[in-house]
Amino acid sequence: MNPFLQAALEEARIGLTEQGIPIGSVLVIGDEIVARGHNRRIQNGSAILHAEMDCLERAGRLTAADYAQSTLVSTLSPCDMCSGAALLYKIPRILVGENKTFQGPEAYVRSRGVELTILNDPNCIELMTSFIQNSPSLWNEDIGLPPELS
Amino acid sequence: MNPFLQAALEEARIGLTEQGIPIGSVLVIGDEIVARGHNRRIQNGSAILHAEMDCLERAGRLTAADYAQSTLVSTLSPCDMCSGAALLYKIPRILVGENKTFQGPEAYVRSRGVELTILNDPNCIELMTSFIQNSPSLWNEDIGLPPELS
Repeated sequence: MNPFLQAALEEARIGLTEQGIPIGSVLVIGDEIVARGHNRRIQNGSAILHAEMDCLERAGRLTAADYAQSTLVSTLSPCDMCSGAALLYKIPRILVGENKTFQGPEAYVRSRGVELTILNDPNCIELMTSFIQNSPSLWNEDIGLPPELS
Repeated sequence: MNPFLQAALEEARIGLTEQGIPIGSVLVIGDEIVARGHNRRIQNGSAILHAEMDCLERAGRLTAADYAQSTLVSTLSPCDMCSGAALLYKIPRILVGENKTFQGPEAYVRSRGVELTILNDPNCIELMTSFIQNSPSLWNEDIGLPPELS
């Protein structure tokens, strides 16, 4: 497996052990992971700490030059909010574990010049498929849907 | 002045007294302000707590039904990240103090069905114009630009 996706998947699994939503993210500059994050909706009662947002927050205040060399890695296709954060900071590359269980605004992100690579890794797909089956209402909340939709 | 924009402007001014970036936001459901926030890049060393994000975070975990009745108010045209957060949660209306000193992806947000109203309030314009003149590097950092650009 891609080592950066592996690190993001480890973050997702940490989230699951915390009874959280198992999505993980890392920010890579050059060949180095500079920050790691995972979804903290449950753990922090947070509406904004999706995995990618948590990762960007933990990276701290970076310069535009730093972001220009970075790759945002996520186990799942980034939603509107997380995609927007990548666009704000002009992060040129996003590496995605899978987009089978959820798909963010990928065409729009690409139209803004971002190189988006979808790996569709079976481990990422299995982790989210299992979570969504077990916790459909929680998952719907995280992507802005009413609880009754699955 | 619109009372909700007035409340957002008060938040922006609180931010300024904290030596922060003077942008404020409130979330309105029905006729009630349910959360208030302001940019906390300086105060918290945060890369993600733009005013709107801070406001949504302070609103806590709401239901899709709550968001469906809400209006997000900001003193400044929401950036890619904050616009994306509004899209994630399907917030149907955004009320904006001004878009003269910065303009987010307004056409895209409208194309996604959001009612975006721009008031171009002179108080909001003056506050940001003054801040940008005094702190151009900090402002550029907040919108993902290199410090040397003003």
